[in-house]
Amino acid sequence: MSAERTARLATQLRERELDALIVAAPLNVRYVTGFTGSNGLALVRAAGGEGAGAGAEGGAGGEGAGAEGGARAGSGADSFFTDFRYTLQSAEQVGQAFAREIVTGSLLEAAARALGEAGGRLGFDDAHTTVAEHERLRTALADGWELVPAAGLVERLRAVKDEDEIERLRAAAQLADRALEEVLEEGLVGRAERDVAVELELRMRRLGAQAPSFSSIVAASAHGALPHAEPRAEPIPRDVLVTIDWGAQLDGYCSDCTRTYATGEGVSAEAREVYATVLAAQEAGVAAVQAGPTGRDVDAIARVVIEQAGYGEHFGHGLGHGVGLDVHEAPRLSRIESEQPLLAGNVVTVEPGIYLPGRLGVRIEDLLVVRDCTQETLNGLDKALTVIS
Amino acid sequence: MSAERTARLATQLRERELDALIVAAPLNVRYVTGFTGSNGLALVRAAGGEGAGAGAEGGAGGEGAGAEGGARAGSGADSFFTDFRYTLQSAEQVGQAFAREIVTGSLLEAAARALGEAGGRLGFDDAHTTVAEHERLRTALADGWELVPAAGLVERLRAVKDEDEIERLRAAAQLADRALEEVLEEGLVGRAERDVAVELELRMRRLGAQAPSFSSIVAASAHGALPHAEPRAEPIPRDVLVTIDWGAQLDGYCSDCTRTYATGEGVSAEAREVYATVLAAQEAGVAAVQAGPTGRDVDAIARVVIEQAGYGEHFGHGLGHGVGLDVHEAPRLSRIESEQPLLAGNVVTVEPGIYLPGRLGVRIEDLLVVRDCTQETLNGLDKALTVIS
Repeated sequence: MSAERTARLATQLRERELDALIVAAPLNVRYVTGFTGSNGLALVRAAGGEGAGAGAEGGAGGEGAGAEGGARAGSGADSFFTDFRYTLQSAEQVGQAFAREIVTGSLLEAAARALGEAGGRLGFDDAHTTVAEHERLRTALADGWELVPAAGLVERLRAVKDEDEIERLRAAAQLADRALEEVLEEGLVGRAERDVAVELELRMRRLGAQAPSFSSIVAASAHGALPHAEPRAEPIPRDVLVTIDWGAQLDGYCSDCTRTYATGEGVSAEAREVYATVLAAQEAGVAAVQAGPTGRDVDAIARVVIEQAGYGEHFGHGLGHGVGLDVHEAPRLSRIESEQPLLAGNVVTVEPGIYLPGRLGVRIEDLLVVRDCTQETLNGLDKALTVIS
Repeated sequence: MSAERTARLATQLRERELDALIVAAPLNVRYVTGFTGSNGLALVRAAGGEGAGAGAEGGAGGEGAGAEGGARAGSGADSFFTDFRYTLQSAEQVGQAFAREIVTGSLLEAAARALGEAGGRLGFDDAHTTVAEHERLRTALADGWELVPAAGLVERLRAVKDEDEIERLRAAAQLADRALEEVLEEGLVGRAERDVAVELELRMRRLGAQAPSFSSIVAASAHGALPHAEPRAEPIPRDVLVTIDWGAQLDGYCSDCTRTYATGEGVSAEAREVYATVLAAQEAGVAAVQAGPTGRDVDAIARVVIEQAGYGEHFGHGLGHGVGLDVHEAPRLSRIESEQPLLAGNVVTVEPGIYLPGRLGVRIEDLLVVRDCTQETLNGLDKALTVIS
């Protein structure tokens, strides 16, 4: 798998006329190499897909010290750099196509050494590389190397999931569904928002999640008008709306889902109207998801439903976002930065909301796979307004 | 509190001959403004501490739209920028010394607009600002502004804790201690490393923690030779060592502690020897912590104990690190980047370890406040080799 990804990345490098690319953002490193530690760096060569593979295989089996000379790396193999703490872990996780080097000090400087004097066009991720790191890299590189901003190359690969990744995302979504069902069996009224959030995270962990995808949101009544509300110690009242936004990270992949529940039949007419509006917008957005339209197109289809109901100014965020190794990744579904057509294999959320400050909030969110001419929903909880008291 | 911090920061700006500083890293924003959301930016003026306060107060009470003109910001007030999602939250959290502006789009570009045509030396955090952000900022700024790398100014303030912060760190450390005690009451042998880690995180949350400070490490036997081991599904055997490295985040502040336990009286002689060596090194390191010596000095005092026992090559990481809003912050206690004297009010870990690949690992860690002529330990669990079966 990592060999196939490296080959696709190398193709992109050749299209951009880059000789090599530094991959340093942790999730990109994980995607390309399989390494899950906190400090790793991959150096991928445009010509490294085939030629380097054979050369690298012999050495990559050795433990750490074997790769330290850098001679193989200098000769054009894809390389992986990490520190002492990850000697064993990187030996287990990183594919044999990479020459592995255990580094004391800066991984960027080690990569610069491995690149040697050859010179060429070196891509770097300007969306993640800091100004200080860039300066350090520029100083360490031999004169012949030109640093070329090349953010988003790995992200573009990551945005299109293969069926194995989709299966992991489905498993994460189903695990999250099950955890919430378990929590709701104990009801909501009188429990602190925080206690519900903690219980939800615990149940996800017990069901096998590595972590929540993000800090769970449990927000009742007027607190639900904060799209990113932090759960409070206050007990949840009867006859209000409660927004729950949660996800499970399983096998590295994140799920993301939101449901809004009523805590009694006595919720206000306004609450019911807002709920119905958000649900109609959400269903329109879901139905529009397929390969072809842009993220902006799909956003507009859902947004117009909310605007026509008179709540346009209270839906201040985008309709959705891609999900994968990261809970927010490409593509976006919004009015800005969403000009690319959706592609089969994208996995995106559709999550419109209406937020009435001081009164209430509603958000409903599903996780969808973009397919040709259609879409597939990965999570499964009901969306009709449900009373959980 | 935020007003005092802004004033201290403004003093640093004047020392560096900066007219203003962009603060954008989330924990720095939190420290300076009190804002806990994910998307905020503060613009602090060298002359903004006093003059701006009065001018800003009137407007900061208004809701969002009131601050959008930027006229007050342009006149020299400290400013805070966030997006729609955080309108209410920022009104509650951000001190009145900041003019608040709710922004659609880039916060950096909004800051550039607020800076206007005046011109001057504008500090930015080159250790967090990406190359792409820097380019965007440079394009948006009026010609008269010079961008000056100024990483670490807020971190330098953060490294010296006031007594209120120390009290929060103590509370976090004590909460973490109590959570582990509860978990150990159920024993270790036969439980999966993962289950112990999940249980520990749950108990920290139930005791009031917002989150773990980091993913808890529970690593038995040879797995303990990975300093950053991920807990496995495998059951913990009898008569081995188990390293547990965990921390609680409480009220924003992180704790960090490590203990290594024996799961039976039958642990090997080698395990006992390694444990005794690490404990001696740890106690020597702790005793050396006080205002005055550098982080490198303290690292050396502990390291020599391990080297003299013949395990020097198996202690590959630094002795410790600062802890506060972040679980890893200034100052460092290590052979590199630790040339500054420790200051009273620093809060640091002392955590030597010995890692024998394929056999075992031991690490022992306390969280300490640096005081004049002495140190104070914030956590309290016993360090003598203890059997938990």
